[in-house]
Amino acid sequence: MLRRGTEEAGAPLGRVAILGLGLMGGSLARGVSSLALAERITGWSPRSTERDAALTAGAVGFAAADWRNAVSDADLVVLAIPLAATVDLLPELAAATPASTTLTDVASLKAPLARAAVAADVTSRWVGAHPMAGGETSGFWASRADLYEGARVWTVRAGAGEASGGPSDIHQRRVDGLWRGLGAEPTPIDAEEHDRLMGLVSHLPQLVSNVLASVLLEEGVDPRHLGPGGRDMTRLAAGNPLMWLDLLEHASEELVEALRSLGREAARAADLLEQRDLEGLELLMKRTRDWKGAT
Amino acid sequence: MLRRGTEEAGAPLGRVAILGLGLMGGSLARGVSSLALAERITGWSPRSTERDAALTAGAVGFAAADWRNAVSDADLVVLAIPLAATVDLLPELAAATPASTTLTDVASLKAPLARAAVAADVTSRWVGAHPMAGGETSGFWASRADLYEGARVWTVRAGAGEASGGPSDIHQRRVDGLWRGLGAEPTPIDAEEHDRLMGLVSHLPQLVSNVLASVLLEEGVDPRHLGPGGRDMTRLAAGNPLMWLDLLEHASEELVEALRSLGREAARAADLLEQRDLEGLELLMKRTRDWKGAT
Repeated sequence: MLRRGTEEAGAPLGRVAILGLGLMGGSLARGVSSLALAERITGWSPRSTERDAALTAGAVGFAAADWRNAVSDADLVVLAIPLAATVDLLPELAAATPASTTLTDVASLKAPLARAAVAADVTSRWVGAHPMAGGETSGFWASRADLYEGARVWTVRAGAGEASGGPSDIHQRRVDGLWRGLGAEPTPIDAEEHDRLMGLVSHLPQLVSNVLASVLLEEGVDPRHLGPGGRDMTRLAAGNPLMWLDLLEHASEELVEALRSLGREAARAADLLEQRDLEGLELLMKRTRDWKGAT
Repeated sequence: MLRRGTEEAGAPLGRVAILGLGLMGGSLARGVSSLALAERITGWSPRSTERDAALTAGAVGFAAADWRNAVSDADLVVLAIPLAATVDLLPELAAATPASTTLTDVASLKAPLARAAVAADVTSRWVGAHPMAGGETSGFWASRADLYEGARVWTVRAGAGEASGGPSDIHQRRVDGLWRGLGAEPTPIDAEEHDRLMGLVSHLPQLVSNVLASVLLEEGVDPRHLGPGGRDMTRLAAGNPLMWLDLLEHASEELVEALRSLGREAARAADLLEQRDLEGLELLMKRTRDWKGAT
């Protein structure tokens, strides 16, 4: 059962437009709708099947076949489409909306968007967001109203917005209110720092899952023979390559280095194993257990 | 709700002794008890707190402070203690029980046990088992009656047992009946083949989780900043080092090689990323997704 997150949830979000009705946008629409956080929700998807599904599910009140119609009188526009498409659409969206409209997005990398916001001259009203929620599924059929409950949502400002991005800023308030209303935890972060962190906590684990699965398939392992741990460790390897390529195109040097460092650590663990250096293996396992225990 | 697995579940297991009442043994006792699969269940644990907890929970009908008292008139004895302790106890257990008593265990590696069974001259009545279930928790407090429901359970014979290990063999029937009764799926396998497979589907993912966590902690990542994927990929890193050292001491050359191969694959993925070789990355991701999709 989805509950309203905090007192801020009561704040009316006004007219909300959600562009993209896949897992992320669809879940947002379902959540905002089921909690009645907005005066009106209009959705757009390039797929008519998703538009119809969102209307039927009551996730949106209106569906637009042209995104321009969805945003024309919106107070808050959420871009919930792939990263490259978000970067491409931002300048057009800026031109299609008045200066009072808050623009936000849910893309998993923020520095490319921050640059696009500067270029489109919308830094005062763009508040980027990245909710740490999702999964290896996609499409409206996978969406659910409580996807963001309890999730951390990084929020990012750029240019002029960085100065005005405090709690008194109307655009920051709207975006924070949206996520708090859904029970999520908006947390401000610098765009570059965010992307560096995501390289480590999200993109690196994804690639490691692919690499592990690739070793297992080379060894001829039947995936039905995986135990619970092996299944968990290869779950991400079932994800959508296209979504990931969109992100990996912007991979930081830190991610490349972290992956190299992982390769070296794996070789070192293989040495410990071969030499039956149980003390060395114990040290590795205890350190990582203590780190996880700090959660 | 735990349901009886198959018609075989009705077969009476007779008097069952379970040595070790941690996650594995405790769950076995709870399951057998709640489905009334045995005429009597006697449990032993070196820890009096676990014995008391198992009695209080009704998981065992009797608890013995000395394992010899638990096995003296048992039809089926299950060793559910760490691998090294299982190998050590098997000869003593062989000497303490009549030739009609079925001996089994739940250790995660089977070749060391198969050798111990040959040495103890109990190959006709030892049927090793390895249920693919468990988790990073341990102790009776973590046990549950349905832990094994739907799990694959590898069963292994050695020496003379390999010839007689068919469905007409009383010992094989008892062990298969135990697991089928709990809703699990017993599947025969060769001991060496089993251990090679476990190196790949269980021990390799465990070490990869430790290696990934170790890279993240070196990078100064706060574990609370992990997203859902990053959390999954480091879950195993919170496991008990002592349990793993017990297994890694017997690591096969194949596991060492697979870990080296993973290190090379990680370095190769880092190269693809650095060169923005999106086609190469897509190929890697598509191959592993197809492999996982074959589940």
